[in-house]
Amino acid sequence: MSPGTIHGVGLGPGDPDLMTVRADRLLRAARHVAFFRKPGRQGQARRIVEGLLAEGVTEYPMEYPVTTEIEVTDPRYNALLSAFYKDSSDRLRVLSERGENVVVLCEGDPFFYGSFMHLYARLNGKVPVEVVPAVTGMSGAWTATGTPITWGDDVLTVLMGTLPEDDLARRMADTDALVVMKIGRNFAKVRRALARAGLTDRAWLVEFAAMPEQTVTPLAEAGDKVTPYFSIVIVHGNGRRP
Amino acid sequence: MSPGTIHGVGLGPGDPDLMTVRADRLLRAARHVAFFRKPGRQGQARRIVEGLLAEGVTEYPMEYPVTTEIEVTDPRYNALLSAFYKDSSDRLRVLSERGENVVVLCEGDPFFYGSFMHLYARLNGKVPVEVVPAVTGMSGAWTATGTPITWGDDVLTVLMGTLPEDDLARRMADTDALVVMKIGRNFAKVRRALARAGLTDRAWLVEFAAMPEQTVTPLAEAGDKVTPYFSIVIVHGNGRRP
Repeated sequence: MSPGTIHGVGLGPGDPDLMTVRADRLLRAARHVAFFRKPGRQGQARRIVEGLLAEGVTEYPMEYPVTTEIEVTDPRYNALLSAFYKDSSDRLRVLSERGENVVVLCEGDPFFYGSFMHLYARLNGKVPVEVVPAVTGMSGAWTATGTPITWGDDVLTVLMGTLPEDDLARRMADTDALVVMKIGRNFAKVRRALARAGLTDRAWLVEFAAMPEQTVTPLAEAGDKVTPYFSIVIVHGNGRRP
Repeated sequence: MSPGTIHGVGLGPGDPDLMTVRADRLLRAARHVAFFRKPGRQGQARRIVEGLLAEGVTEYPMEYPVTTEIEVTDPRYNALLSAFYKDSSDRLRVLSERGENVVVLCEGDPFFYGSFMHLYARLNGKVPVEVVPAVTGMSGAWTATGTPITWGDDVLTVLMGTLPEDDLARRMADTDALVVMKIGRNFAKVRRALARAGLTDRAWLVEFAAMPEQTVTPLAEAGDKVTPYFSIVIVHGNGRRP
């Protein structure tokens, strides 16, 4: 028997209409669908595909053993996550070896800060793995602002809000266009860094891009809290434009 | 009569299968389709949608008056392009005012270094304009390498090969993950900058990502010439991975 393929399928920013034609086709034909979620939640990836899956599909939720309860710098965080990814990829590998194809649902683009990469690193070369790229969450966010992100020779920098404030401020001051992700619990720090870089008045906060709850707010008018996920800060470039 | 909508539709990196479901639907239903091209060429955007357009569709090629014959620093370049974008957007506006919807074909993602932005800037607020985000060419390129581009807290920098060599080298040395676009006639300079940043052995050259002609080559093994378009350099991040 030939092994099945593990498909890491990017779902895009959230609107099922923004999935690729290939993702849509793979999803509708899938007999085995795996996805990450927090324990007790439906999971955002699973929510995006609601109503698209075939009847009789078997679902494989992969529940994170830890999200924000332990700091990522704590060695236990790494040990727990590592065991979790090994266990999850072992389960997918067994399905593949039985000849079954599996679709793994991935928010955004699988190779761009995605969790699927941790399965991919453990499966690639052992069983067939295919990756379907997708519209990134940041594309969804800059489209939502109604203003192009980059023009001409603009430099684009993508930063995670988890970086130290000094790093954030330095890099923010040294780019034309900027995207900041993972800002949830780092929002106050990200804001201070933007202020130090002189960008407060050019920054936009996009929450739930390409989802029904989407909001686009000038950063200067935003409140103190943001949704822990799906919050992205955008600063548009001002490059050459004939 | 209510005005028609100008849809700036991102086509993704090149494979029609990687268009979004929304793009696919808009394209197949379109009665008016506009696209940029060089004079005498079919145009890459038009090529991607070959076979998808309905019978009887009216096509509006918008032919660049200049591409690389005049340096972008020459004032004539700006004047010619500016007149061209004004004329093109005027034609689209007339169609909209007649109540016609128009699909404008955009390679990659319309708001990410795209030509459509120059029409958008002239039309938005005057007639209804909608933008459909897409898989970027760079997503197509990093997916083609078979290795994730960013992990954990990695910083991603996107540079245009048109920048001065010193800027390129400095920024390349100061990022975790790197994408370089517009490298065609700047390839020798981009290579020198990568060498100065110590990245030659980590860099990949991707040509024609997500197209039948796709190639993925370690930069150190690449020849002296690249295809003028559709060439992207990728350096993968090495961030935290449990």
